[in-house]
Amino acid sequence: MARADYEQVVGEMRLASGLPWSIPVTLSVSEVEAAQPRIGEELAMVDEHGELRGFLELQEKFPYDKRREASEVYRTTDEAHPGVRALHAQGEVLLAGPVRLLEPPQYPAYDPYHLTPEQTRQAFQDRGWRTVVGFQTRNPVHRAHEYIQKCALEVVDGLLLHPLVGETKEDDIPAETRLRCYEVLLDGYYPKDRVILSVLPAAMRYAGPREAIFHAIIRKNYGCTHFIVGRDHAGVGNYYGTFDAHRIFQHFVPDELGVSPLFFDHAFYCRRCQGMATTKTCPHGQEERVSLSGTRVREMLQRIELPPPEYSRREVAEILLQWANTDQYRI
Amino acid sequence: MARADYEQVVGEMRLASGLPWSIPVTLSVSEVEAAQPRIGEELAMVDEHGELRGFLELQEKFPYDKRREASEVYRTTDEAHPGVRALHAQGEVLLAGPVRLLEPPQYPAYDPYHLTPEQTRQAFQDRGWRTVVGFQTRNPVHRAHEYIQKCALEVVDGLLLHPLVGETKEDDIPAETRLRCYEVLLDGYYPKDRVILSVLPAAMRYAGPREAIFHAIIRKNYGCTHFIVGRDHAGVGNYYGTFDAHRIFQHFVPDELGVSPLFFDHAFYCRRCQGMATTKTCPHGQEERVSLSGTRVREMLQRIELPPPEYSRREVAEILLQWANTDQYRI
Repeated sequence: MARADYEQVVGEMRLASGLPWSIPVTLSVSEVEAAQPRIGEELAMVDEHGELRGFLELQEKFPYDKRREASEVYRTTDEAHPGVRALHAQGEVLLAGPVRLLEPPQYPAYDPYHLTPEQTRQAFQDRGWRTVVGFQTRNPVHRAHEYIQKCALEVVDGLLLHPLVGETKEDDIPAETRLRCYEVLLDGYYPKDRVILSVLPAAMRYAGPREAIFHAIIRKNYGCTHFIVGRDHAGVGNYYGTFDAHRIFQHFVPDELGVSPLFFDHAFYCRRCQGMATTKTCPHGQEERVSLSGTRVREMLQRIELPPPEYSRREVAEILLQWANTDQYRI
Repeated sequence: MARADYEQVVGEMRLASGLPWSIPVTLSVSEVEAAQPRIGEELAMVDEHGELRGFLELQEKFPYDKRREASEVYRTTDEAHPGVRALHAQGEVLLAGPVRLLEPPQYPAYDPYHLTPEQTRQAFQDRGWRTVVGFQTRNPVHRAHEYIQKCALEVVDGLLLHPLVGETKEDDIPAETRLRCYEVLLDGYYPKDRVILSVLPAAMRYAGPREAIFHAIIRKNYGCTHFIVGRDHAGVGNYYGTFDAHRIFQHFVPDELGVSPLFFDHAFYCRRCQGMATTKTCPHGQEERVSLSGTRVREMLQRIELPPPEYSRREVAEILLQWANTDQYRI
């Protein structure tokens, strides 16, 4: 992202061209690293294993204001926030210019669930779906999420279950475990002709409202016409208000994003309703609702106890139980 | 409806102006009655009790082709179809011209549930609802309908539960009984701040797909932004294909109707899903689904047997049980 784009994205949630874009995508280096290359040079870009991936034609080097980026994008300058912490760990200078990719990255671990935007669009078209809702997740799908996904699916043609598998917080459940959960869930409870599972290789930034917009735009690029925005979408800790990620969409005029957000409240099983519901559709009290915190569920799993079937499908809970009781498990 | 409107509505589902309109609204009289009044005369319009309601300034008298109207609007000329039967019972000549209403009709039986389009629009605005979904019904609301309504409500701000209380088939459940069902249901299972119950004083025509469009346009006029179209909407017998009422919306370009249809499949409780679902969201077999025909439910009620709670809320079932075992009950 060049400087004009960067500044406008941070300040206005738009590229310099005016197109909506809510989170900077930048390449940072240290001041020492930035001193060497000259404008106009081609820089080799390597991945985390040192493999050459492509080239950047250096057009700009510019400093940036991390505090400003933090307070605008993350709405906090608190370094306990994982996005802000990552920002402060970055270099002090941003490099920008056209990128030439040699070969798209491969993700053998996620086969056959790694479809490019071109491939998901083609898959939607092959199935005759005119409307498709995308679901972002970095967690296993519990019944609350299933309810929300199916509610949305009722009014569109297809569902793209699109888990993020890039970098997440250390205490988030690893992508491989989550993929197994999605597989058993789709096998047992979803109609095969209405759902596509595919991964999104991108880092979580935990930017809450800004990231909700970002996630929606990304799914539009994958061909979705609708996108599910939950309560506290992409949030972390108590940095964002429950419905901030809904409200931020009012910043854009309808149709400007090219993808329709579907907003959902907190979902749960209600004993009086005898079914899944949300705070929007259930009039009963908290005492009727089966709702567990992530911490509570982790405690149950560590005690080799399955969460109740109103919270999680048994097949999913068993995979989590197994994962929670292996050596890799750390909280 | 004047002749140009009538012809275009029957043939093209549009008024002469081009506006979408799918069902003729006409005033028919016999040939003898039609012979008397002269063009330009003002005719008194009286209701079924002989009360003066308003005046028609006679501008046109014209014959019409009942067979054509039947086959275009009802997609059948079979006189066993209640809409076609009603059409054939009409006079042979249509009168048209501007109508001057003296006083809007009163419906004390439906107080406080008789809101005009102006009043529902105001009520939506007062509640701050920007999106409202309308639900047409001529039946009690069972759990399948509740599921569909709540799914729709999850993605909009408010629900207008809008039962039709005009003329229906003899074996449909009377409006007063249905209203009591809606009351207990809303009391027990719906959030008060998200739902408005109001009646639609209009006759059912059982025109299936054409009536789905008609019902959507009417609800738009009441201020709804979305409208639920079920499977076999406004259908009767086996005259219409299951999804004909969905497909007909493709006849109009998006936004032309000014109201977004939300299409739903057949809903039921599924024992494997352990919840409500539709043929679109549940992958399990018929044997897992709790689904009863109207006839089956009537038989149960007559045997003083409550339908299962997966089919109908107990509070609703009890009102139906009481009604089914009174003298007024006829099948």
